[in-house]
Amino acid sequence: MTPVTVLGLGPMGRALATAFATAGHPTTVWNRTPGKAIGLDAAVAASAAEAMSASPVVVVCVLNYEAVRSILDAEALVGRTVVNLTGGSPAQARETAVWAGAHGIDYLDGVILNGVVGGPEAALLYSGPHEVYRAHRATLAALGGNGTYVGTDPGRSAGFNVSLLDLFWTSMFGVVHAFRLAAAQDIGAADLREHAKVMAGLVPELVDVVAEHVEAGHFPGDASTIESAASILDDVIDTVRADGLDDGVLSAGRAAVRRAVEAGYGSDGFSRLAVL
Amino acid sequence: MTPVTVLGLGPMGRALATAFATAGHPTTVWNRTPGKAIGLDAAVAASAAEAMSASPVVVVCVLNYEAVRSILDAEALVGRTVVNLTGGSPAQARETAVWAGAHGIDYLDGVILNGVVGGPEAALLYSGPHEVYRAHRATLAALGGNGTYVGTDPGRSAGFNVSLLDLFWTSMFGVVHAFRLAAAQDIGAADLREHAKVMAGLVPELVDVVAEHVEAGHFPGDASTIESAASILDDVIDTVRADGLDDGVLSAGRAAVRRAVEAGYGSDGFSRLAVL
Repeated sequence: MTPVTVLGLGPMGRALATAFATAGHPTTVWNRTPGKAIGLDAAVAASAAEAMSASPVVVVCVLNYEAVRSILDAEALVGRTVVNLTGGSPAQARETAVWAGAHGIDYLDGVILNGVVGGPEAALLYSGPHEVYRAHRATLAALGGNGTYVGTDPGRSAGFNVSLLDLFWTSMFGVVHAFRLAAAQDIGAADLREHAKVMAGLVPELVDVVAEHVEAGHFPGDASTIESAASILDDVIDTVRADGLDDGVLSAGRAAVRRAVEAGYGSDGFSRLAVL
Repeated sequence: MTPVTVLGLGPMGRALATAFATAGHPTTVWNRTPGKAIGLDAAVAASAAEAMSASPVVVVCVLNYEAVRSILDAEALVGRTVVNLTGGSPAQARETAVWAGAHGIDYLDGVILNGVVGGPEAALLYSGPHEVYRAHRATLAALGGNGTYVGTDPGRSAGFNVSLLDLFWTSMFGVVHAFRLAAAQDIGAADLREHAKVMAGLVPELVDVVAEHVEAGHFPGDASTIESAASILDDVIDTVRADGLDDGVLSAGRAAVRRAVEAGYGSDGFSRLAVL
């Protein structure tokens, strides 16, 4: 089994090290602050350079790309493969790939989509040179059922990630704001909860609808129109303002809807906003 | 069976009339523009006043409360019950209840949560005087499995509705923006689709988490903190701006996150935003 090094032992890094060790890979770990390796079936390196020298595959999962660049040691990594699973932007992934290429380091950029490592639910995406992915695919399989190679552009997995995080965190703005608005209307969290779950549960099927409309380049307003969304949003925003709450997210979304109406798309489906 | 009148024959009004007629209620319908009653098993009234005089229960479901107030005829409605299923704000519901009370009209305000009328999936909420609801509960059962009385405040069902619409439409802002951002990163809708469904599918269980934290008044940051959300949002917003896209919704949400950090809640869970 290929030896693997894991740099960074936050919750994700620990999960990565556990997954490699469990799959039988000799695993070396390192963390900037010591004491994080307790309970791991792994060799603890005394320095980052020692950790990087220990394995042909070096997986890094730290706070951000600034930390990545401060840890990665070009000299220790020459001829090895770095698999960077740190969250960041596509531009940061591409910059890091350029740096790696300039130093003779093979580089894959990856993302852990749902925070799960190991087991069938894990969903990881990888991008970078296809031959590098092919060479290490079997090793990366230790991280879980659902590893997907998405292309040679090293920023592509981060591109998926930021798009999905856009969806996720914007939805979470809606979740917390719904509970806040309900409270202002004297509706408790326990009362809103089941209804809110049903409402949130409608969204995945609408992801399908939006995807179909975008692919078809056709945005029918037969189920509901941009104009009707505007009217609903006005009721919501009126209430939010009357209750003295922050209407920033809703008003910014309302402005995008207004621009769509002004551009003549009022009777189209809401999915039209995905291409404006 | 109690005779029922339905005012307004848009898609929802037609579904309401169909549900009452199917359940065996003698049903009278009216719509401002004629010709919308085709195919309905209902008597078509020649005027709104005639329609209102035809039944003890008058259900109204039109575009907005402005339309409601222009249609409802105090003289024709005295001694009858109006059930208003038109979408609007809690304030509008309360104003209409006051108007009805002043004219000797019994009034319930209701909402159709998921756009479904009839059958077990229908979810309707009603608010207003409990004795009025009790008197007409059996009639309203014709609209589907899940009618819930939420309280005497006539604005309460609309309060649920605007809160849930806040969650829903904010999530939809995220859905369309995710596809737009992905396109800017050369990621097609077909490629994003399944991942986006998985991501959207995580939200219902987080509704539970937020509800539990709000009820407990305790917002642990063990799974993820407001500060980590801030860092992720910065990556997303950097990418959105680099691609020249509208960052209004994300930046407004980011500002709320910033205020939470400045108020000293950075290491709390994101759910803390539900009470700020």
